[in-house]
Amino acid sequence: MMKICRRETFNAAHRLFKPEWSDTKNLEVFGKCSYPNYHGHNYVVEVWIEGSINPETGFVMDLKILKEIIHKEILNRFDHRNLNLDCPEFKGIIPTTENLSVVIWNLLRIKINPEFNLEVVISETEKNKSSYSGNDE
Amino acid sequence: MMKICRRETFNAAHRLFKPEWSDTKNLEVFGKCSYPNYHGHNYVVEVWIEGSINPETGFVMDLKILKEIIHKEILNRFDHRNLNLDCPEFKGIIPTTENLSVVIWNLLRIKINPEFNLEVVISETEKNKSSYSGNDE
Amino acid sequence: MMKICRRETFNAAHRLFKPEWSDTKNLEVFGKCSYPNYHGHNYVVEVWIEGSINPETGFVMDLKILKEIIHKEILNRFDHRNLNLDCPEFKGIIPTTENLSVVIWNLLRIKINPEFNLEVVISETEKNKSSYSGNDE
Amino acid sequence: MMKICRRETFNAAHRLFKPEWSDTKNLEVFGKCSYPNYHGHNYVVEVWIEGSINPETGFVMDLKILKEIIHKEILNRFDHRNLNLDCPEFKGIIPTTENLSVVIWNLLRIKINPEFNLEVVISETEKNKSSYSGNDE
Amino acid sequence: MMKICRRETFNAAHRLFKPEWSDTKNLEVFGKCSYPNYHGHNYVVEVWIEGSINPETGFVMDLKILKEIIHKEILNRFDHRNLNLDCPEFKGIIPTTENLSVVIWNLLRIKINPEFNLEVVISETEKNKSSYSGNDE
Amino acid sequence: MMKICRRETFNAAHRLFKPEWSDTKNLEVFGKCSYPNYHGHNYVVEVWIEGSINPETGFVMDLKILKEIIHKEILNRFDHRNLNLDCPEFKGIIPTTENLSVVIWNLLRIKINPEFNLEVVISETEKNKSSYSGNDE
Repeated sequence: MMKICRRETFNAAHRLFKPEWSDTKNLEVFGKCSYPNYHGHNYVVEVWIEGSINPETGFVMDLKILKEIIHKEILNRFDHRNLNLDCPEFKGIIPTTENLSVVIWNLLRIKINPEFNLEVVISETEKNKSSYSGNDE
Repeated sequence: MMKICRRETFNAAHRLFKPEWSDTKNLEVFGKCSYPNYHGHNYVVEVWIEGSINPETGFVMDLKILKEIIHKEILNRFDHRNLNLDCPEFKGIIPTTENLSVVIWNLLRIKINPEFNLEVVISETEKNKSSYSGNDE
Repeated sequence: MMKICRRETFNAAHRLFKPEWSDTKNLEVFGKCSYPNYHGHNYVVEVWIEGSINPETGFVMDLKILKEIIHKEILNRFDHRNLNLDCPEFKGIIPTTENLSVVIWNLLRIKINPEFNLEVVISETEKNKSSYSGNDE
Repeated sequence: MMKICRRETFNAAHRLFKPEWSDTKNLEVFGKCSYPNYHGHNYVVEVWIEGSINPETGFVMDLKILKEIIHKEILNRFDHRNLNLDCPEFKGIIPTTENLSVVIWNLLRIKINPEFNLEVVISETEKNKSSYSGNDE
Repeated sequence: MMKICRRETFNAAHRLFKPEWSDTKNLEVFGKCSYPNYHGHNYVVEVWIEGSINPETGFVMDLKILKEIIHKEILNRFDHRNLNLDCPEFKGIIPTTENLSVVIWNLLRIKINPEFNLEVVISETEKNKSSYSGNDE
Repeated sequence: MMKICRRETFNAAHRLFKPEWSDTKNLEVFGKCSYPNYHGHNYVVEVWIEGSINPETGFVMDLKILKEIIHKEILNRFDHRNLNLDCPEFKGIIPTTENLSVVIWNLLRIKINPEFNLEVVISETEKNKSSYSGNDE
């Protein structure tokens, strides 16, 4: 029942848009978020790791190492990028907040000790957030 | 294990006061919060919805629609109001942070898809919060 | 060109209302802020003092003492109070953010070393602020 | 020496890029900010108005009206837009934080009572800000 | 499914250091956090209490009393102290964020009604947090 | 009338203490801040640069370069350090918030284009801040 959290940020462009749909339907469903030339956000990522404390170090996991994993796996991929155009992780996936937290969770899950539970919380704006904890719990 | 959150704010007056009790007992139990002419807060409401992602839209639920529900059901009722005097929802109910989160949860529960779990988090001040998730989980 | 700042908070009820005007005119000018039964805010007060550093202590002014002055002069008067009904400082004064910063500035000015400049910044909500620095500068 | 402030937010895409320069030089000067497919930000705009209090209303200027001006002049133009592609205001102007605050200041200046001083503060990220007060002061 | 939260802060010095290890190994494992002359943090403590609402008061637990318990048990012990040198609670325990939340949880657990669940969330910096909920749940 | 700002943070230990004074006098003047084994803070540094926009780049000054200067001159010196014991910059200087902003201003002034005005704002806690703009303005 011990959890730790590391917070990082990145800035990216995106739009919500389904190529199978007409522009009118996209605008109807996604509103301003579907505008063709993209908009963007300062995304905040909180990564929560649940596990037990290593009595040798007093750490569940070294937060410096967690920081490095987030930088290597997430910020290097998405920071200052266009999620729709630059990021193959979103091929066929609409970059909603929800899908972004799933994509980030999947990228981190394989880098984090499988004994630990993992939760990813994304703030897209001051008002909109999502949280994903996987299906394996 | 997917959750989304919408954050909204409203400003209201209230006092903590039990009409069955004497003024002295009210002051003893509720302290400054019982002062007769009311005080007030900038309430922050975070509404968390837990459900699965609709593969058509990439949304658990459209956050624009959640925003509209919160405005219609909560802000229209309580913003710039006196919870004790203006709001029949608090008839016989002391407007503590705890009761406020229950009242808001009940108002939202009937407007939100019953397949989704619902949690309401209220910040009354920078230091005091409450969270209610219902009895049905 | 050295300034220090102390931040404190208080919670109060108020309404914007001019007794000389009809209810209709009050509603026209002040909107929701004129509702008869009051609403309220978590007010944030930032008090900035400009002066030179005392070489004995390294302080412009001891922030503990500034804290005590703010508690005694401002929080004791306004915290958990109704600015319109309970506070003679607002007799004949509409408790707008602007007037609140003037009232607080006047109350503090006489307690602060006259060699120091004084600025009072009030946040009424996350979105609305005022700042007053007096007429004597 | 009285100022009021209204805070609003919008989300936009942009890139820092000078068409007269080669891609290599753009990358050299602007780094990741020059990436071709844009990135984006949650921009925070704080508009400060300096003037004297109208004794009739207790307002320097009604913050509801200031809010409406910011929505009409700024958010309608830039929210969910690509500053480089969608906004003629940035034709020939690199959308740096600095230039953004000048553009916004110019758009607001003509809508605000000329007796009032105006300052526009932009937060591009949690770490980068700019502030512009015009040349006329 | 009702929780309340009280937020308090304290400022303390600490270093991460294991006396059984050489300085080199300490530096290897704990990095800058092992520097010999200590560094420090503005710790934020959020105490979450889960229980049911007392229908007499509308409180799970009076937040004023929770505040007093946190001041007496936690801030009196740790505020403006050196966790390694001044605090017997950390004898033989490395003052990591994780261990700090366990120590604080243990100190509070015996003061809080055993019918209530307890969670302690510590923010060491804006980027690093831990949360502990005990073993008894 | 154009200013830009970069925000950085560091964590350090310190105590307020004047060696010429007895322990009793130190405690009298500096209170808890004089405790012998140090306490610490998450210091927030905001560096404001005032100048005109370079029409070539749209920058007053490249914020990436400002970031590097702050890291090299300030964070490398003070992060995870004890201001009293480790930092010759505070030899004979009590590390109050005020003096810290002067020390940081002096270290930055010689690295920043002399055509630009410079202001350094330090947050020691959520409640205590100082700001220094030099004597040369």
